[in-house]
Amino acid sequence: MIFSSSLLENAVNEFAKLPGIGKKTALRLVLHLLKQQETEVDHFSATVSKMRNEIKFCLRCHNISDKEMCNICSNTLRNQQTICVVENIRDVIAIESTQQFNGLYHVLGGIISPLDGIGPEQLTIDDLVFRIKNEGIAEVIFALNPNIQGDTTIYYIGRKLKEVPVKITTIARGIAFGGEL
Amino acid sequence: MIFSSSLLENAVNEFAKLPGIGKKTALRLVLHLLKQQETEVDHFSATVSKMRNEIKFCLRCHNISDKEMCNICSNTLRNQQTICVVENIRDVIAIESTQQFNGLYHVLGGIISPLDGIGPEQLTIDDLVFRIKNEGIAEVIFALNPNIQGDTTIYYIGRKLKEVPVKITTIARGIAFGGEL
Repeated sequence: MIFSSSLLENAVNEFAKLPGIGKKTALRLVLHLLKQQETEVDHFSATVSKMRNEIKFCLRCHNISDKEMCNICSNTLRNQQTICVVENIRDVIAIESTQQFNGLYHVLGGIISPLDGIGPEQLTIDDLVFRIKNEGIAEVIFALNPNIQGDTTIYYIGRKLKEVPVKITTIARGIAFGGEL
Repeated sequence: MIFSSSLLENAVNEFAKLPGIGKKTALRLVLHLLKQQETEVDHFSATVSKMRNEIKFCLRCHNISDKEMCNICSNTLRNQQTICVVENIRDVIAIESTQQFNGLYHVLGGIISPLDGIGPEQLTIDDLVFRIKNEGIAEVIFALNPNIQGDTTIYYIGRKLKEVPVKITTIARGIAFGGEL
């Protein structure tokens, strides 16, 4: 694509760095922003920068948060004895959106995957074990992807909890509609 | 969607305002930005703001530009006697990308569309007529959409140029593959 303005070109290139956004989509977004008021565009950039610079991670569950402790952990109406272990923040948002789970979360920050060079020490597994041992947790629900990496992670954490009197469960698994055995 | 952080929520809402981007895609983009370095995200926002605040429109052809006169208008190697009339900046980028046109452009900023409340006075038609009369233009090529609005615009400008010795042409039109008469 040939641009007559380097300002436009730079903005398009920045948008095209985002996942799933190609040059054409980036151009559409940039031309849309060009039509908006300057204040609105400034508000857009300020919000994005502020988000990146000011966001914190909950010290307890490693979920994304505005404060040291996230809304979920600090909500005393929730069941403080159940922890749902998830891979990332997106999983928390997905499960919260169902409004079916009333316990706490623990965000691992990934799953054990030796091929990608991710070992247990890069995840928040030690924090999880510490929480289970010290916070009077009665049940740990693993909500990880049903693949080898997910199973390995569950097995690894399960072994660390062998001596701990806690109930370990996983979310239900099924066969995808149209799937074959 | 339920977010545990208002910073995250605000950023997602800002992205979801962009055309063709829903809440889910916005969340994906925001989580991607969260994983980047702070400096990179600041660079992203700064580029976008800078683009909106500093961009100019070429005084001659109304194309987007960093300076008072765009690269195309100020390029003396281009054919200064041919003007291609287009609706918006995106058309300039599309035609420039073909590298088949060596003349100048004129961006109307829209097309005459009474139903949308767009009349000739909101477009840069007077500038175009002035250019044709005073810059020794030999040919005007209309590259507008082949619909009623486009034809109306061509007819309107054509009437304004009745007394002017200039050749008026339009780009070729065809029937789309698979189309019917």
